Amino acid sequence: MDSMMMDMMKTMPADKMMGMDMMAMQECIEACSMTAMAATMCADSDMGMDMAKCSSMCMNMMDVATTTMRMMMRPMGMDMMSMRAMLMACMEMGKACSAECMMHAEMDEHCRMCAKACDAMVMACEKLMNSMAMA
Amino acid sequence: MDSMMMDMMKTMPADKMMGMDMMAMQECIEACSMTAMAATMCADSDMGMDMAKCSSMCMNMMDVATTTMRMMMRPMGMDMMSMRAMLMACMEMGKACSAECMMHAEMDEHCRMCAKACDAMVMACEKLMNSMAMA
Amino acid sequence: MDSMMMDMMKTMPADKMMGMDMMAMQECIEACSMTAMAATMCADSDMGMDMAKCSSMCMNMMDVATTTMRMMMRPMGMDMMSMRAMLMACMEMGKACSAECMMHAEMDEHCRMCAKACDAMVMACEKLMNSMAMA
Amino acid sequence: MDSMMMDMMKTMPADKMMGMDMMAMQECIEACSMTAMAATMCADSDMGMDMAKCSSMCMNMMDVATTTMRMMMRPMGMDMMSMRAMLMACMEMGKACSAECMMHAEMDEHCRMCAKACDAMVMACEKLMNSMAMA
Repeated sequence: MDSMMMDMMKTMPADKMMGMDMMAMQECIEACSMTAMAATMCADSDMGMDMAKCSSMCMNMMDVATTTMRMMMRPMGMDMMSMRAMLMACMEMGKACSAECMMHAEMDEHCRMCAKACDAMVMACEKLMNSMAMA
Repeated sequence: MDSMMMDMMKTMPADKMMGMDMMAMQECIEACSMTAMAATMCADSDMGMDMAKCSSMCMNMMDVATTTMRMMMRPMGMDMMSMRAMLMACMEMGKACSAECMMHAEMDEHCRMCAKACDAMVMACEKLMNSMAMA
Repeated sequence: MDSMMMDMMKTMPADKMMGMDMMAMQECIEACSMTAMAATMCADSDMGMDMAKCSSMCMNMMDVATTTMRMMMRPMGMDMMSMRAMLMACMEMGKACSAECMMHAEMDEHCRMCAKACDAMVMACEKLMNSMAMA
Repeated sequence: MDSMMMDMMKTMPADKMMGMDMMAMQECIEACSMTAMAATMCADSDMGMDMAKCSSMCMNMMDVATTTMRMMMRPMGMDMMSMRAMLMACMEMGKACSAECMMHAEMDEHCRMCAKACDAMVMACEKLMNSMAMA
């Protein structure tokens, strides 16, 4: 993550974050941003009859990752139940999108990268979820 | 819902919808659209120190409702687990946003309408979830 | 537009709207909402090698129409130059998306409806732009 | 930009990009991503009566920057007129948002960083526009 963005994260009101590990959240924001970009490009590149499902899932992934990322960046309205449910949705979408993209990973570089970004994001979401559970 | 939009919904490939009640989904799309609009306007109107939490939650609601709506409109990549998890996130966010908006409903018309839209959306999501469970 | 949404529009602070015709803006919000939905569904339905350009343009149209709609729903930060530039971008995107969709309109119902929604939106944007020019 | 993202950019079909300088586009994508994040956080942090305009503009900036970024990441539907108009809208919004945020830059760290991100983004958009003009 860019150093400027790290400075912005530091200004987040810790008392609103309900015990979430700020380092885990920062990594999760980064992973969501990466996945949103990878999925945007993958959805666009999918050509041919067999790729309609992949393209559609990547469009969903792009929107889900962007929404999850934005929610983490809004400490003022942080609500534990909603944040947890959104992280769950992001993980489910990440798993489904990765599984689909992996099917085309050998012939399509976008799919391979998108699957990789999804996998890293699912792990980052899980890590953040665990830090919330312990809080 | 506009009649043109209803025509578009009819062209959706039913075999991709995994038994979801198409009428329930149509109502859910409409309710998400309404909530996304109401939350956009409510987030903008919130002024004063005490409204920061409300505004932030409405921004989250706007993005969550828009993403949920878009996912329902993409039958090609419909995945039951992800759709269900996103509907859950939308319901949690809807409940939290409605509860916060209700606190200001008497003095702020935007909050009253946003809470009302959220409540209707939560019910529409629940109805759609139930039709999925039975499928 | 739903009657509840019309009530919300009425609560908009007219003094922030810089002379924009509120009825024209309401029609434009509705047209953007319709186009965002139609383009989301059209992008998803596009299958086959020849439809990659159409799908990609519809994804752009979906995001541009959603952003334009949201900007109209945020009177507190209304800025004439930005609003005008965004309406221009929405019109350019609407013309390009409609032209592409029209090429497949006879064989694809989604494309026909998306083109129709784009055309109506371009007209609504133009009408709103003209009301701004006269202000 | 992350090295994985740079690899993805390299897979973009150059023949679709209509002579755009790919390095300038990459920088512009990064600048839009940074601004979308900074504006999301700035919109959330704005408290108090006097900040409603700033918060509203930052919400617009967040959506405009995200849409502009996504359009650059979709080479299949790249349309010169629409891309140019969207870059114009992004620049106008960036100038307006930066001007507003600068008013609060001394007392609010989020505003200072958001203004800085906007300024860098406006320059990146301008550079990309110029490379298109020469193409």
